[in-house]
Amino acid sequence: MGLTIGVDIGGTKIAAGVVDEEGAILNTSTVPTPATSEGVVDAICAAVQEASSAHEIEAVGIGAAGFVDDKRATVLFAPNINWRYEPLKDKVEQRVGLPVVVENDANAAAWGEYRFGAGQGHDDVVVVTVGTGIGGGIIIGGRLHRGRYGVAAEFGHVRVVPDGLLCGCGSQGCWEQYASGRALVRYGQQRAAATPDAAAILLGLGDGTPTGIQGKHISQAARQGDPVAVDSFRELARWVGAGLADLASLFDPSAFIVGGGISDEGDLVLEPIRKSFRRWLVGNAWGRPQAPVVAAQLGGRAGIVGAADLARQG
Amino acid sequence: MGLTIGVDIGGTKIAAGVVDEEGAILNTSTVPTPATSEGVVDAICAAVQEASSAHEIEAVGIGAAGFVDDKRATVLFAPNINWRYEPLKDKVEQRVGLPVVVENDANAAAWGEYRFGAGQGHDDVVVVTVGTGIGGGIIIGGRLHRGRYGVAAEFGHVRVVPDGLLCGCGSQGCWEQYASGRALVRYGQQRAAATPDAAAILLGLGDGTPTGIQGKHISQAARQGDPVAVDSFRELARWVGAGLADLASLFDPSAFIVGGGISDEGDLVLEPIRKSFRRWLVGNAWGRPQAPVVAAQLGGRAGIVGAADLARQG
Amino acid sequence: MGLTIGVDIGGTKIAAGVVDEEGAILNTSTVPTPATSEGVVDAICAAVQEASSAHEIEAVGIGAAGFVDDKRATVLFAPNINWRYEPLKDKVEQRVGLPVVVENDANAAAWGEYRFGAGQGHDDVVVVTVGTGIGGGIIIGGRLHRGRYGVAAEFGHVRVVPDGLLCGCGSQGCWEQYASGRALVRYGQQRAAATPDAAAILLGLGDGTPTGIQGKHISQAARQGDPVAVDSFRELARWVGAGLADLASLFDPSAFIVGGGISDEGDLVLEPIRKSFRRWLVGNAWGRPQAPVVAAQLGGRAGIVGAADLARQG
Amino acid sequence: MGLTIGVDIGGTKIAAGVVDEEGAILNTSTVPTPATSEGVVDAICAAVQEASSAHEIEAVGIGAAGFVDDKRATVLFAPNINWRYEPLKDKVEQRVGLPVVVENDANAAAWGEYRFGAGQGHDDVVVVTVGTGIGGGIIIGGRLHRGRYGVAAEFGHVRVVPDGLLCGCGSQGCWEQYASGRALVRYGQQRAAATPDAAAILLGLGDGTPTGIQGKHISQAARQGDPVAVDSFRELARWVGAGLADLASLFDPSAFIVGGGISDEGDLVLEPIRKSFRRWLVGNAWGRPQAPVVAAQLGGRAGIVGAADLARQG
Repeated sequence: MGLTIGVDIGGTKIAAGVVDEEGAILNTSTVPTPATSEGVVDAICAAVQEASSAHEIEAVGIGAAGFVDDKRATVLFAPNINWRYEPLKDKVEQRVGLPVVVENDANAAAWGEYRFGAGQGHDDVVVVTVGTGIGGGIIIGGRLHRGRYGVAAEFGHVRVVPDGLLCGCGSQGCWEQYASGRALVRYGQQRAAATPDAAAILLGLGDGTPTGIQGKHISQAARQGDPVAVDSFRELARWVGAGLADLASLFDPSAFIVGGGISDEGDLVLEPIRKSFRRWLVGNAWGRPQAPVVAAQLGGRAGIVGAADLARQG
Repeated sequence: MGLTIGVDIGGTKIAAGVVDEEGAILNTSTVPTPATSEGVVDAICAAVQEASSAHEIEAVGIGAAGFVDDKRATVLFAPNINWRYEPLKDKVEQRVGLPVVVENDANAAAWGEYRFGAGQGHDDVVVVTVGTGIGGGIIIGGRLHRGRYGVAAEFGHVRVVPDGLLCGCGSQGCWEQYASGRALVRYGQQRAAATPDAAAILLGLGDGTPTGIQGKHISQAARQGDPVAVDSFRELARWVGAGLADLASLFDPSAFIVGGGISDEGDLVLEPIRKSFRRWLVGNAWGRPQAPVVAAQLGGRAGIVGAADLARQG
Repeated sequence: MGLTIGVDIGGTKIAAGVVDEEGAILNTSTVPTPATSEGVVDAICAAVQEASSAHEIEAVGIGAAGFVDDKRATVLFAPNINWRYEPLKDKVEQRVGLPVVVENDANAAAWGEYRFGAGQGHDDVVVVTVGTGIGGGIIIGGRLHRGRYGVAAEFGHVRVVPDGLLCGCGSQGCWEQYASGRALVRYGQQRAAATPDAAAILLGLGDGTPTGIQGKHISQAARQGDPVAVDSFRELARWVGAGLADLASLFDPSAFIVGGGISDEGDLVLEPIRKSFRRWLVGNAWGRPQAPVVAAQLGGRAGIVGAADLARQG
Repeated sequence: MGLTIGVDIGGTKIAAGVVDEEGAILNTSTVPTPATSEGVVDAICAAVQEASSAHEIEAVGIGAAGFVDDKRATVLFAPNINWRYEPLKDKVEQRVGLPVVVENDANAAAWGEYRFGAGQGHDDVVVVTVGTGIGGGIIIGGRLHRGRYGVAAEFGHVRVVPDGLLCGCGSQGCWEQYASGRALVRYGQQRAAATPDAAAILLGLGDGTPTGIQGKHISQAARQGDPVAVDSFRELARWVGAGLADLASLFDPSAFIVGGGISDEGDLVLEPIRKSFRRWLVGNAWGRPQAPVVAAQLGGRAGIVGAADLARQG
């Protein structure tokens, strides 16, 4: 099989790319995410047709934020786009005349990392993507673990604090509320409000108020040594690492791959994650063999590459 | 292949059984668990030799409480028997001249349920065994998921309460501290101490003091309607069910099988577990498809049957 | 001294009453709470002037939701009315020509119960008022304990769950998030969403959806035996009782008085509160002497009566 | 009144001192704590008689670890000495012929700090003593707040983590389990086990193993910059500070005094405590007036001085 298209439907933009068998992206296109589900389908089809005019495309892979069914055809529900039982595969196949595979976006990105990024050479990989929220994917025995109903690897909604923070999913104490970009911002804002003197650098990067602090300010301030920013990353890392230790108890993979925005910080955040991981890993004191915790390599392209490769494999 | 032997090494006794291809146990033998590792090996070999005198045995499967390595040969560490890097497979093979497979005991029991018990007809099953502690096994795509280092499915040590109860594993807040037979006894004792009037039936079954309450008293009192005993089971069920919801987010199996001592209670405990499971299952309100939560069927035989079957498969 | 006026500024209405030395209310008036702070002052003055035309009034006591300073003059901040350093005493005194005492509304209500309600005969009383939120007051040695800065007895914002629910105060895990009318509604909604079959009565009292459930529905359904409503009250009671046990460790009062909306439920909620209180009371197993937990007696009048009496005492 | 004796009954030694009206200790004597309650009474009487031979003593104050009744006469229960309803006042009065006052040891120490130490000039003080466990005392309006039954200010057993660590008191999640010398040792041991490389200094001060780490090692290593030791103190400080914020919500004192072993560390631990205090103090962002958090001044003498002064006041 030759070229396939990977489409990554995000909350703000839809990115599509033509991908070859080696995972290389030949060209990409990006449009803002339309407000309606019809608009999203239109945008996907437009991207496919445009790519088809220049390349011979054999299949389409779509990564969508939401619960995708076990047939990789229907989006059961997608909080951001307000989809309920959207038959995305059928709609796009009818329009573009190519085989379509729909996959959860984090699963697609995890697959991309496994095939062409940090997961190469491993057959059992857990990918955790810490972006605005937290998501991920699981590869077991070289196969994407989708689960009976297609909704495995919903890491973000594992309960890590009983009676904890409310989550958009309707539950409380979800991992996503403590280990995500949104959580990082909360950590920074709370700490800056409590000890503004210690947060001088951080506050100076925004509008001077705790509520004006954004994620990018925390990253920049941490690199400049702002103690509140550094401490906010540590708090984030504590929760990420403790969660990885739990995933090790459950899946025992050969590697953990940490992706998403925070992986851009490199060892600034990965080292405290590893430290927390070891702290909470059961059997660590007995010399238990440990999976490495490594940074993702494909960045924002993982979703496109992964979706395209899943489409290739059919 | 014909008959194999399954050996289940427990904290108090070692049980062995000759098992046929259908999972039927032809005969069993039981001895107290010796105090030393040499004694345990002797006991295993004696059981195998005795069985071999009456049957033609082709392989031996051993289920051991502890972390077993990825080669299914060495017990990395076993808290109860004080084993560290015990080459159990080699020792027994040299003595009995048969192929030996070593497996974590909860994994073996899970495999038994999958093959010949409540898991039949499912390819993705999560088995949770609530005995003194809590353990389990994972079957994915019809295969036992052992993990890269052989130590997957250590359910009991997932952290469910940050800064929670100390665990024998050295960590804090492990699921086992809240969802196990030991936890049930603690719930009963604490509640009976606080409100002895309400625990009249429960206290009457033991020596009359809260600390004299044992697990069997709570079971019996609950069946007689003792409100403290019923409430203790509910508390246990809350923690079991919430944990199953998390396992659904991660594995999305086609069925959950609940085994161990509490499954003897039937719906008295399974119904509140299901209720708590639904309460915490992400996407429940959106009509997410749900795996059934069912009772194990093989009882205490699951470990022997599973170990024997794993040995048969080699 | 003869008659005084008590004014209770609530989120929706301002109630004022003329009160005699025995705590009897001679007459009352009520107006909706104006949106601006000027409007509130106008409303207070109007009530005082109207009352003065029929009675000889000697002083004015005002209970306001918010942090009141140690001089009982200025509202430091009041979340609901958006006051910051509002010199309420001066403003009203200038207008009405009578001595004015400003007090936190929960403190005023606690004082009312102490003087003329359930607290009579006790010199060390902790009053906990469970309404929309949770508040209260402390009487030590027959005196209202206001603290150095006037902001003692802010029970609602004690942290009971680390990393817990966000609170309007900017913190997390505040008692108010778990032990209040708002929490009760959340318990009912969450449980009804998870197990709608069990919540048939409760759902039938509202619009049929979990999010349509209101506090009054839970009260009514609980009295009809709806298991979800009963369970919601139990959850509330668990948190209230555990908090009372902590207050006993700190204050060791001679009585706890539980007021607010939930005290209308009587033993339906007081009994589980007492049970939880005993369960978590340190030293309970050693026969520690225990303060009774009793219902408030003055209902919604406590604030007016207490404020008026504080004004009388000057 | 002239001289009085203060006796401090600790788990390992009984210290007695002759104290004048200014809180100065004229001389002291110390004996190991006897194993039996009779032995303790003997030791107290011997110390009083010895002191009486050189000074004219007018009264005896005894500080005892345990719950002391409201008459300051009987130790209701004392976990360490295994006392139940011990009529200590009567026993000692009969033997020594002087008026005796019995007080909880932490209350006595708090009183000492209030009268002659860091609390001078304040009328509302909360003293928190972080030693092996955590205890303290409350002064309100210049009087020791003993509570209705004499058992107020049992800070250590306030629940700060639901479902948290088991406590010797029979409850779970008590503050003492997270904010005490014992907790500090646990933090050091857990962290050193997880990341031994980072704990090189700390491990080198003990026997090289995590379990060999003692409190004094953590103090010394922290002063040498060992990151694990510093982090352990920070964790301790987080819990102490968060608890002080809660005490501020309840008592609103004019000062917090932190005593016990950790106050020897000075700002190494006080600064992070203040930081955590501000972080969790409700209303901090609105400019709420804040009580200072200061170190105790009398060290181990506070108990003797306080008990003697309470005896003087009768």
